[in-house]
Amino acid sequence: MSETYPPRVTITEVGLRDGLQMESKFLPTEQKLRLLHALIDAGVRRFEATSFVSPRAVPQLADAADLMREVKRRGDVTLAALAPNAKGIERALQANVDEVVVFLSASETHNRTNLNRSRARSLEDMREAAELVRGTSVHLHAAIAVAFGCPFEGEVALEEIERLATAFAEFGFQGITLGDSTGMATPRLVKQRVDMLRHKLPGLPVTLHFHNTRGMGMVNVVQGLASGITSFESSLGGIGGCPFAPGATGNICTEDTVHMLQELGVDTGIDLAALCEVAKEFENLLGHPLPGQVMHAGPRLRRFTVEEALCALGS
Amino acid sequence: MSETYPPRVTITEVGLRDGLQMESKFLPTEQKLRLLHALIDAGVRRFEATSFVSPRAVPQLADAADLMREVKRRGDVTLAALAPNAKGIERALQANVDEVVVFLSASETHNRTNLNRSRARSLEDMREAAELVRGTSVHLHAAIAVAFGCPFEGEVALEEIERLATAFAEFGFQGITLGDSTGMATPRLVKQRVDMLRHKLPGLPVTLHFHNTRGMGMVNVVQGLASGITSFESSLGGIGGCPFAPGATGNICTEDTVHMLQELGVDTGIDLAALCEVAKEFENLLGHPLPGQVMHAGPRLRRFTVEEALCALGS
Repeated sequence: MSETYPPRVTITEVGLRDGLQMESKFLPTEQKLRLLHALIDAGVRRFEATSFVSPRAVPQLADAADLMREVKRRGDVTLAALAPNAKGIERALQANVDEVVVFLSASETHNRTNLNRSRARSLEDMREAAELVRGTSVHLHAAIAVAFGCPFEGEVALEEIERLATAFAEFGFQGITLGDSTGMATPRLVKQRVDMLRHKLPGLPVTLHFHNTRGMGMVNVVQGLASGITSFESSLGGIGGCPFAPGATGNICTEDTVHMLQELGVDTGIDLAALCEVAKEFENLLGHPLPGQVMHAGPRLRRFTVEEALCALGS
Repeated sequence: MSETYPPRVTITEVGLRDGLQMESKFLPTEQKLRLLHALIDAGVRRFEATSFVSPRAVPQLADAADLMREVKRRGDVTLAALAPNAKGIERALQANVDEVVVFLSASETHNRTNLNRSRARSLEDMREAAELVRGTSVHLHAAIAVAFGCPFEGEVALEEIERLATAFAEFGFQGITLGDSTGMATPRLVKQRVDMLRHKLPGLPVTLHFHNTRGMGMVNVVQGLASGITSFESSLGGIGGCPFAPGATGNICTEDTVHMLQELGVDTGIDLAALCEVAKEFENLLGHPLPGQVMHAGPRLRRFTVEEALCALGS
């Protein structure tokens, strides 16, 4: 905890994809656009903005092409989109995304449950995905789900992460995300995986994607920082949930992460107050309380009057 | 984060005092006793069990003397109680508590708001408290509220913590808790305060009491560990709330803390599965969802069947 941390990190906002996917409500395109533009105004520069997945499978993101058509594009903002297969990649390229994210699971059972095919087959799909994107200016990114443990199989071997990441590098992927899909990451596993990747594949930038399912999301971010990682994914208001654990939260919360990074002296380029305002709007639009803490409590030096305190204590 | 941590730490369960104090419901003594005994069975050995405060001020703890009379006492279990004044201390001593906890606030405004007197007067009260307890076998503990920042005044100077702690040591207090009453602690402040106290008052054991109001509770625990602290306070199910921030959580959660410590290789002597069962009973008794994560999600290696996953994903 007393190490030197990187002076600046990049936050990728995944609330509009990973977050909304868990919501029962369809958020109209216009509202998604308002949130996206407000987040850009607050200083967020990277988004997992949507997913070119079957609208039947994920109706919440059925408007992926509309969203990409109508969003104000900026040279300094990266809009990434998930694509589960060749058809999704073609749609994503047609929609002019800045980055395509293709993924598989580190465990066989999770891959078969989530993608309905073997890991071997998914790896072949990813090689083909890389061929589809090669030659375009679109950034090619790979994500490994359940990279810190699988809810069906338990521990995931470090060797499996090495094998998959090595394949991605060979296929021409330009970056990789280790996803902690069900909140099984621990500081020990974060350090182990990051150290291995930086040693074996020093040219492949690593992004960390944590869930707070068991309350360790922030601790894992700090371990990532201590291990030299400068790219993290998080979700506005902490939306996302965990499909396996009713009552447990999902993605780590963007505002809480930005607030903590500020307090650790790490710059994100994001205006925390503006970010919290967007989170509150998000909460209003979704119509239920979001798990974010700082959006409710305010930053640590927020001042209260004695009257506010007595009123709150009396309530 | 890669430091060596202490092999074993002590958790003080504060849910029955700090937690219940924020609940609107009065939990009958019998239910409190059932929770307390179940927690002891799960391996918890230290409790802030109640408070000898005016029943008018805190009706939830009006049964302090009954609770102490009826609880099964054990030589290896410490039952501490808060006492706000000389009358409270006398009641606590009559009730045969193992430890009396007396407190004040690090900031003048918070002390006046919370205790309705100046810090100078509170310090005088604490000297008298020490005299009342001296000569008995009861352990004498001091707590400093808002030790990492005040919601009214902002930053709290390190020198103020040093001044108060030095006075406590002179008065004969045998331990001190730094309380982060409104979730303003950061790793930098934790390290700074702990390093100072260990240097200036090496004979005075330090306990850390964090709130998760801004999502940094666990990160602060890890910093405490890295700084050599072996005593932490937490609340079953994470109950407690923050009076100033509706929607934000309060005390760090005991199960989540025990789970994280286990994953860091730090022993607490507590059986996590048994602890989570008590947390679920607590949730049932209180009748509303508690913020604890591990009680809902299970420990990280909890296995799910594919059927459970499909069922959850389909809901």
